[in-house]
Amino acid sequence: MVVSFAGTFLAIDWGTTNRRVFLIEDGQVVRTERDGRGVTAVQDFEAEAAGIRARFGDLPMLMAGMVGSNIGWRAAPYVPAPAGIDALAAKLLRIDARTAIVPGVCAADPADVMRGEEVQLLGAVAAGLVPGDALLVQPGTHCKWVDMRGGAIAGFRTAMTGELFALLRSHGLLATQLGSEVIPGPAFAAGVEEGRKRDLAASLFGIRAARLLGQRDDADAASYASGLLIGSDVAARLEGRSGQTLYILADAALGDLYRAAIQANGCTAHRVDSHDAFVSGIIEVARR
Amino acid sequence: MVVSFAGTFLAIDWGTTNRRVFLIEDGQVVRTERDGRGVTAVQDFEAEAAGIRARFGDLPMLMAGMVGSNIGWRAAPYVPAPAGIDALAAKLLRIDARTAIVPGVCAADPADVMRGEEVQLLGAVAAGLVPGDALLVQPGTHCKWVDMRGGAIAGFRTAMTGELFALLRSHGLLATQLGSEVIPGPAFAAGVEEGRKRDLAASLFGIRAARLLGQRDDADAASYASGLLIGSDVAARLEGRSGQTLYILADAALGDLYRAAIQANGCTAHRVDSHDAFVSGIIEVARR
Repeated sequence: MVVSFAGTFLAIDWGTTNRRVFLIEDGQVVRTERDGRGVTAVQDFEAEAAGIRARFGDLPMLMAGMVGSNIGWRAAPYVPAPAGIDALAAKLLRIDARTAIVPGVCAADPADVMRGEEVQLLGAVAAGLVPGDALLVQPGTHCKWVDMRGGAIAGFRTAMTGELFALLRSHGLLATQLGSEVIPGPAFAAGVEEGRKRDLAASLFGIRAARLLGQRDDADAASYASGLLIGSDVAARLEGRSGQTLYILADAALGDLYRAAIQANGCTAHRVDSHDAFVSGIIEVARR
Repeated sequence: MVVSFAGTFLAIDWGTTNRRVFLIEDGQVVRTERDGRGVTAVQDFEAEAAGIRARFGDLPMLMAGMVGSNIGWRAAPYVPAPAGIDALAAKLLRIDARTAIVPGVCAADPADVMRGEEVQLLGAVAAGLVPGDALLVQPGTHCKWVDMRGGAIAGFRTAMTGELFALLRSHGLLATQLGSEVIPGPAFAAGVEEGRKRDLAASLFGIRAARLLGQRDDADAASYASGLLIGSDVAARLEGRSGQTLYILADAALGDLYRAAIQANGCTAHRVDSHDAFVSGIIEVARR
């Protein structure tokens, strides 16, 4: 017997480094828990799931994110774009009769994949937070840029913008310069402008040269570098799309940086709460 | 009394991780030694210099490279471009009467710096290996692209292409895919073509996606990634310069990769031996 996920169930947004559990009753979140038990911190997924059920109740469990990858509990399939809620619901990976993982979404040319973001994206539309035809961006380690059409994920592109920033901040020539907080001020804006040249390897070396020649205070270097990376990502994606409205699924801090860069490239951006979007999406998948 | 470096002297190409000593008599290298005693491996530069003199003879010593930086023996100045041999010779940093460091070269807008490459570049012209008006490239951790005019360094641009490749190969998402040898074959060429889009952060994520979707064997991933990084560097530098002839100062392996990428961007490239160029350059500086 395959149990339905409608009614009361546990929804889990289970990523690489973080995990968030939602207890959902009749379409409402009644309890939530967030911790650092991402898939890289977990060895025994059955034991983890049993622990969650011990805390939240012995309920059906619907998961999304890297838990469904080859570094997670088990590899769920990728549904090819265009993909909507129904396509995800039809391809759930069933671990057992009351435990399942939502599939990811893939694109073939250029090759691209997502896992976890699809629930947020489709949930944002389902909740009426964004229109069914819209350009969405999910900033982060691997920033997703998504064309929604008719409420489905029509196509998307991933840029490892956040990962490049993290690499540069932790290793290599620029690491000692990039320790400061990133803020969306004049240094960030100057980086965004430089990023429009889409010449990352040269622009990045310029951060070192500017220090050696006394042209920029290191207190501004992290903001400039972030602006440069985000700015080149935004410029590549929005080339020829001036005047468009975008929707950003992000927390306030990162959302503000992307909004500033998007506006500097002649577009408008609204921020949407990504947790609300996830909950709406997983409830919609559960209902099908 | 300031000793002249003409006649018999020791020339040292002293970089971050490597060092090469040349014993020069009457314009000829009579003995050379290469080791890993770059500036990051050395604490006591006076003792190192004494050791070199103990092995090679108690001779005047003329050095170039990162030995003249703030992580080296002492910080030599930067001579602003345009800069020729005379400008370098006029601004030697004298450690003592018979020990000196060649200055680096800087550019103001965009901010850029070099240390050590200037001797190779000017030496390549002095030795007749390249014309006095030419576009030169020195691939490496920090790849230099140099406009020579009238035998002087007129302007230049540094791209941290090699460093980005090293970071990606050692850390982060792609590291496990990039272990193979880089060869200038079809995967490298495909990377160069992708690099022409100048959309690094997205193209790099495509390496991960291609693996997950079974589109490319990981044996080819390092060559593709190298092609992507070198290709975007070359495309940024050669935009609108189709048909030009370039001169590459590099070893054979890296020189072949850059030559392939330069040819794919519609230009021609010749390789020049960078050690010959250094020796010619340092002899010219010593003569002034």
